Parts: sequence; structure tokens; C-alpha cells
Amino acid sequence: MSERVTASQAARLLDGADHILILTHQFPDGDTLGSGFALCLALRKLGKTVRVACSDPIPEKYEYMTAHIPMPDFEPAYVCAVDVADVKLLGGLSVYGDRVDLCIDHHGSNVEYAQSLLLDAGCAATAMLIFQVIQQLGVALDKDIAQCLYTGLATDTGCFAYSNTTPRTHRIAAELLEAGCRYKELNKLLFETKSLSVMAAEREALNSLEMHFSGRAALILISRDMLARTGVTESELDGIAAIPRKIEGVEIGITVKERGEREYKISIRTGEQIDACHLCQNFGGGGHARAAGCSIEGSLDEVKTLILGAAGRALEENP
Amino acid sequence: MSERVTASQAARLLDGADHILILTHQFPDGDTLGSGFALCLALRKLGKTVRVACSDPIPEKYEYMTAHIPMPDFEPAYVCAVDVADVKLLGGLSVYGDRVDLCIDHHGSNVEYAQSLLLDAGCAATAMLIFQVIQQLGVALDKDIAQCLYTGLATDTGCFAYSNTTPRTHRIAAELLEAGCRYKELNKLLFETKSLSVMAAEREALNSLEMHFSGRAALILISRDMLARTGVTESELDGIAAIPRKIEGVEIGITVKERGEREYKISIRTGEQIDACHLCQNFGGGGHARAAGCSIEGSLDEVKTLILGAAGRALEENP
Repeated sequence: MSERVTASQAARLLDGADHILILTHQFPDGDTLGSGFALCLALRKLGKTVRVACSDPIPEKYEYMTAHIPMPDFEPAYVCAVDVADVKLLGGLSVYGDRVDLCIDHHGSNVEYAQSLLLDAGCAATAMLIFQVIQQLGVALDKDIAQCLYTGLATDTGCFAYSNTTPRTHRIAAELLEAGCRYKELNKLLFETKSLSVMAAEREALNSLEMHFSGRAALILISRDMLARTGVTESELDGIAAIPRKIEGVEIGITVKERGEREYKISIRTGEQIDACHLCQNFGGGGHARAAGCSIEGSLDEVKTLILGAAGRALEENP
Repeated sequence: MSERVTASQAARLLDGADHILILTHQFPDGDTLGSGFALCLALRKLGKTVRVACSDPIPEKYEYMTAHIPMPDFEPAYVCAVDVADVKLLGGLSVYGDRVDLCIDHHGSNVEYAQSLLLDAGCAATAMLIFQVIQQLGVALDKDIAQCLYTGLATDTGCFAYSNTTPRTHRIAAELLEAGCRYKELNKLLFETKSLSVMAAEREALNSLEMHFSGRAALILISRDMLARTGVTESELDGIAAIPRKIEGVEIGITVKERGEREYKISIRTGEQIDACHLCQNFGGGGHARAAGCSIEGSLDEVKTLILGAAGRALEENP
């Protein structure tokens, strides 16, 4: 168990430390990197020696935060993890797992591995907590810090669209804009730009689109061939699985993904009426009410007939 | 010329009036409708008889703001236009053009047709001005008013992503969330949902995608056949013309649209380096630095060769 601390206590701990190593989680996203680099820049403004580390390479699209920041090598005297809910998520840096002095996080699932823990699961992003800590440190925001914090806020809230967005998220965004954050360029880069392989995969997925039950269900197929041809990654597939549900009038979006010979993984996304988890439980699967999954064996035709049959019954029960 | 008024003066004018007709612009968008219905609801809370009018049908996706609001018939004693920069934009309601008492607008291009004008071109949306007026009227926000104002804010700023977003936009959004606006559902409806015809058009556009100059230029074709087959509207085509520029690494996005026999309309979108307007001026066209257009006559192959030739030269000049 960690000792719970407030933002002001966390700031005092950091203020009393030097030679600080900031750890981010593996497969880094905008919030862990934005939080880590914002905190690093703020602590350096206080004259401290600080380094940010991540077990995985930093995705190219986040390099605007990281590429121009030199990372000195030193023996860390204080270790702070940001947006890391579990030691396992440190990946190759899990050697530091049992000596994390402070963890700053917004995941309710945090396993309390750090000595001190600043946790608020009501925050849309860890960057909101870092914003508070930086305020408590008495460091003024500058453009670079603001860009890092905005990246955390925007990526974890889908640009302020998701249900985790709070009035405070917007109020912090207002202050980041005032600090000179170039939000227009960031949002273009973060939300508009797609790789050619994702575009190719979207094209193939759309070419396989079938509408059923008077437009109330839509189905797309992702074949192994298509994955090989386009080179799209697993995490990019998430966005593609969302396509059928985006079509106006569709209550059940179905993505059928070929896993192997006679082996298909089904992903279901639903609107407000249909319970996706309940639908997937018919086939031994599960998940959430609006997004769930299951696996079905058989030929492609058999699998489609089975999942569409279940979808049709669910639609009949919710006319 | 109109008499310029402040938000508090505009509120006093409205407070002194009754039997108020609120005019919105033709081909209504989220800001004109959100502004009009928010103001209507607020004035009714003061016991006034108010009606919102639009010359065109209200798009289905905005019906959550409008469908449950009864619209009484009465002879208007006071006319207020919202988000309407020019009498011409009143469409079939332009009979009221010479008797607009008050106009509330954020378009710098406003032609000052109303007797009194509350104008702030620095506001991302007219809904921001309506928010101020409602505050000055002393009416408390409720969920319905907040949903209307949020719709104006979100649609005119691309969900807080565009460069017109200001710190105040975020601070007003914070208050709208506090008033109970169901922003998650609204954002899903406003930004995620696509009609089946748009999906079909995107598929056909992606099938025509060509990459040129080592991925620095991308071209899609929109044929007359494709338009007829998918039934996509002109305004929906805007989003499709944006596709080539969204591909990672693309500096020039080119959309070639078949207009008639040997007649093509070209739309160019560029990144930070290339001047789209300059490129289109080669063919007698024009526009903005990042988005411009031109028309070229010839066979499809000839037209593609011409526009790609010009794009290639522009890329050579900006290596």
C-alpha cells in the first residue's frame, strides 16, 4: 500500500529531491509522455537534474514533445512514475519497480506499488494532476510545458469529447491556451493524421461492408490477407472496428476478424439500446454494455450467420 | 450601418421586448440553431412569447435541440437574427430583412443590416455571445439551454480543435458541462456519425487513391458516376476532399472532381510549406494558402498530368 498524498504534498516531495528519474509506461501514449515531459521541464526550471525514461521507443507523432529535450545520464536519487498503474507496465524499466518514491496517476486500478501516491481517478488525464503539481511547485507554465500537458488532456479525452471530460479539464485547457500552446497544430497531428496503412485498411474494411436488418446492423470483415497487405497494427485496428457503429441508424456494429483457419474473433459495438456484452455471451464472450467481443469457430459463412442471427434476435427484442 | 451594442445592452433590448421572432440562417448549422434555440428558451423563462424560424428544414441530427420545442404562431413585434451575416442568408425569410431589430453575430463580414448589432468576430461561435446575453438577462442555464449552446461551440470549433478556439471557449464549455449538458452523446452524434452515403463515397474515394512524389502528394477522384451512385451531397463532399491531406507525410492533397465532359474541378489542401492558392493560380484558380481550388479542361489523364506536374514543381521548390 502507498501513502496517499495531495498535489501540494507531492510538490513538496519533488521540491526536496534531486537527480530525479521520471518513469513512463510501456507502449507510451500522449498522457504518460505529456505528463512525464511536462514534469521534467518544470523541475528543470527549479535547477534540478531530471531525466524521463520509457521502455519503448517514442512514437514519431509525439516527438514534438521529446526530440529537442536532452536526456542526461545520472544515477537517480529519486524515482517518480507518471500514469503508470502497475509495475508490470514499466516494461523493461521494471527493475525500478520496487524503488518508486512517488507515483502520480489517474487510474482507479493503480496497484499502489509506490511509496507515495497522488491518485485521482476523477481526473480525465494524469496531465491534470501534473498541472496541479506544477502550480504547487510555483513554476510558471511556458509554451513547451503547456504543449505537453495539452497533449495528455486531448489524447485521453478524444479532444474533450469523451465522458471523462470535466469542467476542470476545460478550465485547465483554457490556461494551457493562454500559456501559448499551439493547439491547432497539435490537434491536427494527434487526431487528423492517418498512416497510409490505416487508410488502406479502412478502404478494405469499407469494401467489405454489409448492411443488415434494414440498416440497423452493419458488418465489416478484416481478413488475415488484408492485415498482411496493409501492415496495420493491432492498436490501429481499434479505430477500424469502430467504423460500422458510426453509420447513421446502425444499432449494432459488427467486426469479424479472421484469426486462423475456421477461427474468427468478433467485436461488437452498440448504441444505447442493445447490450453488446449480453449478445457476446451467447458465444462465450463478454465485455462492456456498449463494446464487447467473442470468438466463433466455423467457416466465414457459418460465423456470419451465427453472429447476425444473434444480432437479429437482439434487434427484435428492442424494436 | 447598425448601432453597435454590448451584450448587456442587447440583453436590455430583448428584456424590453415581447412577441420576439428569432431568425436563423438558411442551410442551418449547429451554431445558428444552437444560438437561436438557446435564446428562445432563455426568453421564455422570462415569460415571453418567442418563436425560432429558419427558411430550410432542420437537419435530422439537430432535432434533439428543436423537436420538443413548440413553436407558437404570432405576429412578431421584435425581430432578432442570430449568426446571420447578411440578409441574403435569411433565404425564404428575407422578407424580414429590413425589419431586423437586433442581430447577434460573430462573422467579421456582417453587412450591418440590423438596427442594433452585437458583433464579436473574436468569438469562435455566436453561441458564445448568446451565453453572455443570457447571463446578462439573469436567466440560469438549464440542461436544454446548455445543450444548445454547447452545440454551437462544438460545431464551430471542430470540438475545440480549430484555431478559433479561445480560453473563453473552454471556460464557457466548463459552465455548460456544469449545467448538465450531455456532451458525450452530443459529440458522438455531431462528430462520429456518418450517413451510409458518405461511407460509400469515402470507400469509392479511397479506392481511387493514388500516391505520388514518394508519398508527398496524394490524389483522389470523385466521378459523376460515384456522386450519382452514392447520393452524397455537396456539403458532405467537403469532408471527402480533406481525406488525401490527412495521410501521414502528405504535403499536397488533391481532389479531382468530374464536373462534365472534359471538365474537372480541382481542390487542393496543403500542409505548412506549400501555398495551395499559388498552385491553383497556375490554372486561373485561387483561394487560401492551405485550401484552394481551380478548374481544368481536358481528358482525365490530361488533367491529372497537369495538376500533378504543378504539384511536383511546388514540391521541388520546397524540398
